[in-house]
Amino acid sequence: MNEVIQTILGHRSIRRFKNEALTQEETDQIISAAQAASTSSFLQAYSIIGVTDKSKKEEIAELAGNQNYVAENGFFAVFCADFSRHQTAASLHDQDIHKAVESTEGFMVAVIDTALAAQNAAIAAESMGLGICYIGGLRNNLETVSSLLETPSHVLPLFGMVVGRPAEQHEQKPRLPQETVYHENTYNLDSESLKQELKHYDETILHYYRSRSSRSKQITWTSQAASTLSHSKRLYLNAFTKEKGFLNGRP
Amino acid sequence: MNEVIQTILGHRSIRRFKNEALTQEETDQIISAAQAASTSSFLQAYSIIGVTDKSKKEEIAELAGNQNYVAENGFFAVFCADFSRHQTAASLHDQDIHKAVESTEGFMVAVIDTALAAQNAAIAAESMGLGICYIGGLRNNLETVSSLLETPSHVLPLFGMVVGRPAEQHEQKPRLPQETVYHENTYNLDSESLKQELKHYDETILHYYRSRSSRSKQITWTSQAASTLSHSKRLYLNAFTKEKGFLNGRP
Repeated sequence: MNEVIQTILGHRSIRRFKNEALTQEETDQIISAAQAASTSSFLQAYSIIGVTDKSKKEEIAELAGNQNYVAENGFFAVFCADFSRHQTAASLHDQDIHKAVESTEGFMVAVIDTALAAQNAAIAAESMGLGICYIGGLRNNLETVSSLLETPSHVLPLFGMVVGRPAEQHEQKPRLPQETVYHENTYNLDSESLKQELKHYDETILHYYRSRSSRSKQITWTSQAASTLSHSKRLYLNAFTKEKGFLNGRP
Repeated sequence: MNEVIQTILGHRSIRRFKNEALTQEETDQIISAAQAASTSSFLQAYSIIGVTDKSKKEEIAELAGNQNYVAENGFFAVFCADFSRHQTAASLHDQDIHKAVESTEGFMVAVIDTALAAQNAAIAAESMGLGICYIGGLRNNLETVSSLLETPSHVLPLFGMVVGRPAEQHEQKPRLPQETVYHENTYNLDSESLKQELKHYDETILHYYRSRSSRSKQITWTSQAASTLSHSKRLYLNAFTKEKGFLNGRP
């Protein structure tokens, strides 16, 4: 198994960091890695906002659900879907692009582009011995995040990423069995075999949560997933994405 | 620069492959790598459908815009946003999750999860000396793709990925300047500096396209982006995502 695959398979989210900023060289390599990712139609429809201002970091940490590692880390960046610079490009060529940008297809393009870039950044950081954690909690209140970061129309912060020198080490969280996630030629809709796979996986996860060294708890994967999704949250995003120039829902 | 970052920075899309299937070990490593990615609230909201059936591959190749490398490669997989198994999990615990699944937030979670997994797969493949290309052309006709792959409700194919032993080598496509994509603390809205950056980048891209060894052409980045986005395409996706149980747009 090569070094790259070892890095990828060794991933675990890190939520406690040494109080030490990344070097300029480290952040440069992380951003270059992000930019090297594939991008739909070469649009590069994302931006990365590094947040170094202490009070901004603290405010976002609070918004994201009092996650103090959002404030205390070596580097914190916000990844945004971004069609703003394409508006400038379009204006240089007298083109009207609002219909494409506001469509579901446009939203998919920008969200996928942003996520591919972010995952490259994550792997690059981990390859340097740094730890990372995605911060979806940013979406608790994108209105305030957008105003703090002064993002214009056609820019939508999607998630943050904290990076730093790990001050904790813990076990890896087992993933769903490969047969649950991977299908061949047709989607396997056999609900009995799915239930069996989930039952075994529930035991694996119950054991993992019970025996892990920190924040141990007693819950299965299916009950956790069902409970997480039974509380629909961030419903304001349906209107907010529209307000920011995405997903107008018109055909 | 370590091996991982070298792999990431060495990326270029490959569209011509040797006629040689990946080994089981190779596809296993690629899928394991995909599953190791971060996932929002541990939901793992995606599925991967490997397509090995020759006639299915040919049909998808045609749908994706007559891209013959979709039919001829070492491995072809379709990456899908997937909340189907969460419905099963919810039914095991008598929970109703439709509101979360159909919300904009739910869509973001599933699309981001899927893209993070895919990018891990891409990097893993490239680390083994394989070439990859994302296939967004799948979205030309998701109705037919869904029916070919028999994907149920709450599963939405987002893109494909071809993998194989490269039968071509070419130059790397220069990305936007770092200062265009990377911001610090606040989004840089200085349109004059953006126009200057884009002007320089246009020259870089014009030179790249003119002088590259295959499919050379004469176009700048801003004109290409403006032209791509002036033709709004795949507008059926606004209704289709809804039909598949995503993005109902209700608050």
